[in-house]
Amino acid sequence: MFVSESLGLSKHLGETLEERKILREALISHSFFSDVIEAVRFDKKFGEIEEGTVVAKTINGVRIVRGFPKIKRALVLNPTLKKHFENEVAVEEKMNGYNVRIARFGKNLYAMTRRGIICPYTTEKARELINPEFFKDHSDLVLCCEAVGEESPYVPKSMYGVEGLDFFVFDIREERTNRPLPVEEKLRLCEEYGLRHATYFGTYDVDVAHDEIKDIISDLAGKGREGVVIKDPEMKLSPLKYTTSQTNAEDLKYAFRFFNDYGKDFMFSRIVREGFQSFEFNEGDKEFRERCLRLGMAILKPMVESIREVALGGKVSEKLRLRFGSLDVMNLFFEQWKRSKVDFEITDIKKDGKDIVVFVNKTMRNTTDKIKAHLEGIPW
Amino acid sequence: MFVSESLGLSKHLGETLEERKILREALISHSFFSDVIEAVRFDKKFGEIEEGTVVAKTINGVRIVRGFPKIKRALVLNPTLKKHFENEVAVEEKMNGYNVRIARFGKNLYAMTRRGIICPYTTEKARELINPEFFKDHSDLVLCCEAVGEESPYVPKSMYGVEGLDFFVFDIREERTNRPLPVEEKLRLCEEYGLRHATYFGTYDVDVAHDEIKDIISDLAGKGREGVVIKDPEMKLSPLKYTTSQTNAEDLKYAFRFFNDYGKDFMFSRIVREGFQSFEFNEGDKEFRERCLRLGMAILKPMVESIREVALGGKVSEKLRLRFGSLDVMNLFFEQWKRSKVDFEITDIKKDGKDIVVFVNKTMRNTTDKIKAHLEGIPW
Repeated sequence: MFVSESLGLSKHLGETLEERKILREALISHSFFSDVIEAVRFDKKFGEIEEGTVVAKTINGVRIVRGFPKIKRALVLNPTLKKHFENEVAVEEKMNGYNVRIARFGKNLYAMTRRGIICPYTTEKARELINPEFFKDHSDLVLCCEAVGEESPYVPKSMYGVEGLDFFVFDIREERTNRPLPVEEKLRLCEEYGLRHATYFGTYDVDVAHDEIKDIISDLAGKGREGVVIKDPEMKLSPLKYTTSQTNAEDLKYAFRFFNDYGKDFMFSRIVREGFQSFEFNEGDKEFRERCLRLGMAILKPMVESIREVALGGKVSEKLRLRFGSLDVMNLFFEQWKRSKVDFEITDIKKDGKDIVVFVNKTMRNTTDKIKAHLEGIPW
Repeated sequence: MFVSESLGLSKHLGETLEERKILREALISHSFFSDVIEAVRFDKKFGEIEEGTVVAKTINGVRIVRGFPKIKRALVLNPTLKKHFENEVAVEEKMNGYNVRIARFGKNLYAMTRRGIICPYTTEKARELINPEFFKDHSDLVLCCEAVGEESPYVPKSMYGVEGLDFFVFDIREERTNRPLPVEEKLRLCEEYGLRHATYFGTYDVDVAHDEIKDIISDLAGKGREGVVIKDPEMKLSPLKYTTSQTNAEDLKYAFRFFNDYGKDFMFSRIVREGFQSFEFNEGDKEFRERCLRLGMAILKPMVESIREVALGGKVSEKLRLRFGSLDVMNLFFEQWKRSKVDFEITDIKKDGKDIVVFVNKTMRNTTDKIKAHLEGIPW
């Protein structure tokens, strides 16, 4: 099989890979993906191969795009940064969108989600927005981007002033080794090729970085933004992330609106972060009460809204606005969703110039059914 | 083996029981438990045998005390009660202590925890406080009680005005079949033998019960008490429980103080209850904000306190005051805790008349270690 071969796996490991059913289809075959003959993704971590790694048999040979590694979180800034890093740290904004890797296979760009699905929607946007010259000069590099904006199929947000969807580069990596370029080099390449990138706040001495970051975090919090990623400027050490209380609350709102479709781990981890931040920021009574109220509201308000919605005969759903350049890509995208068991309903379609704008309700079936059962008198 | 025999299990089922390691020791052999030759408990449900079921080889033959069944919860009172019950429901207080079954084996009383451990502490208290005449007349019955009070090794609470520990009967059941007596008969027997029982609020037509219970709940909430159990007066249908928002908050305070020793399911379920209650009680803006603040405080305050405690070099622990009638029982009780892997430290021992009063710190090792690691800079 081309995967074992290209990864240089032993016969035994190749068999294990099959037995454990770790590989899944990474795309639906279609002329939109004409450079790819076959592509699989790693649905789980396998040895050192990250979850989300894509192995694609393309018209120019087999390509391996490694999965984006999990970034750990500092629960307290001090002493975590001093312990984890050396000398200096580079601080960049962590944006709230979805993680996308963009590579060129054959003649065209391909955009992969975190899990390794080559997404038709995201790929169409990447081909429109990303300067292909970059890949002419650097065919073995992958752009790791946050895809953000109002027209996001996964994390629609308006706070970045992006009406459609746009890509902000945060890492540039070698596709096969996953080796990231140093921060400065990444920024220089973004500049050179006109690629938007996540805000770079600066590089700080590691002994004072925690104080600088507290200021950055409080500024970001005021704007409702997510947080920061703290990096070794050389990218030899793994980065760490740190988020604002506001984004923890936003995450919880989302999770509790769809409380039966979301993992308890997701909720729990965000609650625990609040505890550590409150401790480290050493807040007064007033700020602490505000944080508690914010947390309580973030949890209860969306939950009660969902219950009300179902009590009135509705379904708990997320409304999305998506924009496609062609009917083909639209059909391909929704076919991908069907195969991924996403439960959705198209409520409206409009032409907007050359574009097709689609309004979708993504139904959260588990939450809807659970609420319905309890409201009808099923005990827990 | 005496367990399979007494339960009438087939050879095959008996083997399964052993293979799956479902049976555990129910007590430590000791002269305090002199009526019992050997006793095991079911650590998991097995077919229709409830978790916590105790099978004891006693000097008068083998005895089976069935585990206390799980009581489901109404997430909304209306229409759950109408759907679940017929005609009338009896409403009793659900107290906040620990579940204990008391039976007589041989000449003495024995008190079993929910999990089926014959607890030396609880047994000593039962022998002091429970009228043994009851068992002379009803040797096949079990008293299902809530053990509450300040001197509780598991759920110390002062709100019931019990300085030591006392037992409040809520069910009387046949030990071997688990069949409960009707509510009136239970109350009559309690009266007859001078046994304290959980407050009985009355029996209501099932069509109006939800409104009556809302009033009872709001009254209990004001007193910081837990909630109600709603029963079929004949006890032919399974009971349902319903709790106050205050007790949900209390539970959450406890769970988040020890956030790494407590299950996420425990936290999650209590949060979801708040959502349904807020919806059903149709609260105004002010009450809703109060509920949110209460929830947020219940979560964050104890967590930040635990973090502070560890930051100052301490351990996250629960302080308990226990009272023993004899040194023997004290030693036996702490030996039981050691075998159950409870992490504790005796901080003080005093004589109080004939009693031995012991002050204990129960350390929550997982929470302490986790906080310590993060404060020292280990990322998550």
